[in-house]
Amino acid sequence: LQSKLPEVGVSIFSQMTALAQQTGALNLAQGFPDYDPPLLLREALARHALAPGSHQYAPMPGLLRLRQAIAAQVARLLPEAPAPDADQEITILAGATEGLYAVLAAVVRPGDEVIILEPAYDLYGPAVRLQGGVPRYVRLPAPHFQPDWAAVRAACSARTKLLLINTPHNPSGAVFTAADWQALGQLAEDYDALVLADEVYGPLVYDGVAPGSAWQHPALRARSFVLASFGKTYHATGWKVGYCLAPPALTTQLRRVHQFVTFAVSTPTQHALADALEADPTDAHWRGLATFYQAKRDAFRTGLAGSAWQLLPVPGGYFQLAGYAAFSGAGDLAFAQELARAWGVAVVPVSAFYHDGYDPGLVRFCFAKEAATLAAATARLRRPP
Amino acid sequence: LQSKLPEVGVSIFSQMTALAQQTGALNLAQGFPDYDPPLLLREALARHALAPGSHQYAPMPGLLRLRQAIAAQVARLLPEAPAPDADQEITILAGATEGLYAVLAAVVRPGDEVIILEPAYDLYGPAVRLQGGVPRYVRLPAPHFQPDWAAVRAACSARTKLLLINTPHNPSGAVFTAADWQALGQLAEDYDALVLADEVYGPLVYDGVAPGSAWQHPALRARSFVLASFGKTYHATGWKVGYCLAPPALTTQLRRVHQFVTFAVSTPTQHALADALEADPTDAHWRGLATFYQAKRDAFRTGLAGSAWQLLPVPGGYFQLAGYAAFSGAGDLAFAQELARAWGVAVVPVSAFYHDGYDPGLVRFCFAKEAATLAAATARLRRPP
Ligand SMILES: CSCCC(=O)C(=O)O
Ligand SMILES: CSCCC(=O)C(=O)O
Repeated sequence: LQSKLPEVGVSIFSQMTALAQQTGALNLAQGFPDYDPPLLLREALARHALAPGSHQYAPMPGLLRLRQAIAAQVARLLPEAPAPDADQEITILAGATEGLYAVLAAVVRPGDEVIILEPAYDLYGPAVRLQGGVPRYVRLPAPHFQPDWAAVRAACSARTKLLLINTPHNPSGAVFTAADWQALGQLAEDYDALVLADEVYGPLVYDGVAPGSAWQHPALRARSFVLASFGKTYHATGWKVGYCLAPPALTTQLRRVHQFVTFAVSTPTQHALADALEADPTDAHWRGLATFYQAKRDAFRTGLAGSAWQLLPVPGGYFQLAGYAAFSGAGDLAFAQELARAWGVAVVPVSAFYHDGYDPGLVRFCFAKEAATLAAATARLRRPP
Repeated sequence: LQSKLPEVGVSIFSQMTALAQQTGALNLAQGFPDYDPPLLLREALARHALAPGSHQYAPMPGLLRLRQAIAAQVARLLPEAPAPDADQEITILAGATEGLYAVLAAVVRPGDEVIILEPAYDLYGPAVRLQGGVPRYVRLPAPHFQPDWAAVRAACSARTKLLLINTPHNPSGAVFTAADWQALGQLAEDYDALVLADEVYGPLVYDGVAPGSAWQHPALRARSFVLASFGKTYHATGWKVGYCLAPPALTTQLRRVHQFVTFAVSTPTQHALADALEADPTDAHWRGLATFYQAKRDAFRTGLAGSAWQLLPVPGGYFQLAGYAAFSGAGDLAFAQELARAWGVAVVPVSAFYHDGYDPGLVRFCFAKEAATLAAATARLRRPP
C-alpha cells in the first residue's frame, strides 16, 4: 500500500512524550497540563456517567444545551459581536483537531491553495494535502512572529481558497493585533478566500491585552470558521471536545463532513461541559485563565532569568520559545534529545513546525505545568550537565 | 461556497429521530438502544472522571491498556486466529464512524474505485467521494441480502482499491457465511484489493450461528481493516469509541490519518472500557449479546406474527426489515412519515440506503429496545389507524 502521507511519522509531540517517559525527564514537550480539569467539571462527568438516559448518540451538531451555553458565553465575552446562533452557527466537534480536519475536508478541493503561516502545528499541511490541496507556506518573522502581511499577500493567488491562522500562536505565543485582524480581513476579501481561525488558546492573552477573535470582526465573521477547544480552556486535553463557530452557510458545509468523520461527540462529556458553563454565568473560570497562565509564564521566565537561555517574548498561549546558542551549536532535534537525556527536561524542537525542516535554533517549553514542575525544570535548565 | 457534498442533507437517522420527537412516536428508527450501558461500565467512567491524572491526551493509537485488553479478548473469542498485536495492530478510534472515514482517507486516492454493497450505511458513498474515489455500487438481492459474488466480481476492475463489506449487515441483518468469506478473500486476492470489514454488529448473530470476522481468515487478515464498535457492544452509542484491527502496514497508514482526524480518543472513556473488559475475563457480556438480542428480535417478530407486515429473515444485527404492501402503495419515505405521524412508530425507509433512491418497499425497525417498547410498538403496528 502506497502511503498518501509518506513523510508523516510519529508526531513530534508523541515522540517527545515517549522520550520523556523513557528518560524520566520532566515533560515540557507535548502541550498539556500536568494538573486536572476543575473538580466541578469532573463531578459533572461522573454524574452523567452514572445517570441513565444520556449514553446514546448526541445530535450530530452537538447537544443543543451545550450549544446554547456556548452561544450565551460567546455573547457575554464578545458583547459587541452578534451572539452566534446555537442552532445554525455552532457545531460540537471531537476536539479542535477534528474541527481543523473537517473544515479542510469540507472546503478544500484538489488544486486549491491554503495559506499556512510557519512555524505551524503539524496537522495543517498534511490535512490540506489529504484533500488534494496545496499548502502555501509563509514564514512568520522571529522573534515576534507577527505575520508579515506583504509576504502573506505575495503568497496569495486566484487559487487561494483558505487562509489558516492561529492566534494565540503555537509555538510562539504571538497574538494578533487589531492591525493583523484588519489586514487578514482585507486579504480574505481581496482574494475572496475563507478563513480558518484556530483560536484554541483564545483566552490565554497576557499583560492586560484583551483576547480577540475573528468572530468580532464583521468582515471576517462572514467568511470564517472559528475553532475553540474545551481541552485547552478546561485543562482537559484528553476529553476531546471543541467547537466551531461559523455563519450558517459555512456551518452547513462543515456539518456535512462532520457527519461522516465522527458523526457526534461523547454525550456524557457534552452534558458535563454544559453543566460547567451553566454553573459559571460570569465566566469566572474563562476570565481567570489569563491570570492563571500569566503567572505560570512569569514563574518559568523568572526561573530562567539571568541564565544563558534566550527567552523570546510570550504574549499569549502556553508555550515559551527559547534560543540555546549559548549551550550548543547542535540542530534543534539533537539538542532536544540531549535536553531530555542529559538535562532531564523534554521539549519540542521548533523545526518540527516547518514543512521543510527549517531550524531556527529554538526549542519550545510548555509551561502549562504545576509551579513545582516549573521550579524543578528551571532548576535543571539553569545547570547545564 | 460550492459544496463538496451537494446532495448530502440531514441524515435519515437524524431526520427520523427528530420526527419521532416531534410526533411523540416510538423511536424504532435510528439505531440505538433505549437502555443504558452496564452499570459496571458507567461506574468505571464515573471513577475515572473523578480520579486525578487521566484527563490529558491519550496516546494517539489509544491507551495501551485498552489495546491489550482488546487483544486478549480477540484472542479468547477467535482462538484459531493469531491474537492481534496490541502495539501494532489495534487502533482506538472515535467510533467506527471515524474508523470508516479514516480508513477511506488513508487508502483511497482520486480515481480509485471502492465496491459498496447496497443497501448500505449512508456514510460509505460520500466518504469515498470526499477522497476523490469512485463508489461502485452492487445491489444485494432481497430478501436474503447475501452478496451475489458474480455481480460483485463484475463490478471489479484494475481500479478497484477496496471492497467495503458489512456483516452482520445494516439494514438487513444478513450474515456472511463461510462461502461469503471465501469468495471475498478470492476476489480481494484476484484484484489485489484491500478490504474494509465493518463488523460493528459482530457478536449479534442468531440461531446458534457462530460470529465470524475477516480477522479469522488468513487471506483476508493480511489485507483487511476490521472495525468494531463499543457503542454497539456496550449499549453506549453516545460514548463514541471503536477500534480497528489491521496488520501493521495497514495500521501504520490508518494511524497517519487518524493522527490528523481526531488525534486521540477520550482518556477517561478508554480507561472505563479497559476496566470493563478486564473485569470480564470470560467475555460473559460479549457472549451474552446474541441471546440478549435474539430475544428482542423474537419478541418483536412474535408481536407482529399473523399481521399483514411482511417480516424478512433477521440472522443478525439489531434491525428488522419489513414489507408494508398490505397497508400502502406509497413510497417508503412517505410511508415512514405516515407511520410516525399516524401509527406512532418511527422507522427508517430503506431507500435511504441506496445512492440512487431505489425503493424496495421496505422499512427498517430497530429492535434494540426494552421489551415494553417493543410490546407498545407491535401493538400499534398491529392496528392500522
Ligand atoms: C495533539 S498533540 C499536540 C498538542 C499540542 O497542541 C502541542 O503540543 O502543540
Ligand atoms: C450515526 S446514526 C446511525 C445509527 C445507525 O447505525 C443506524 O441507524 O443505521
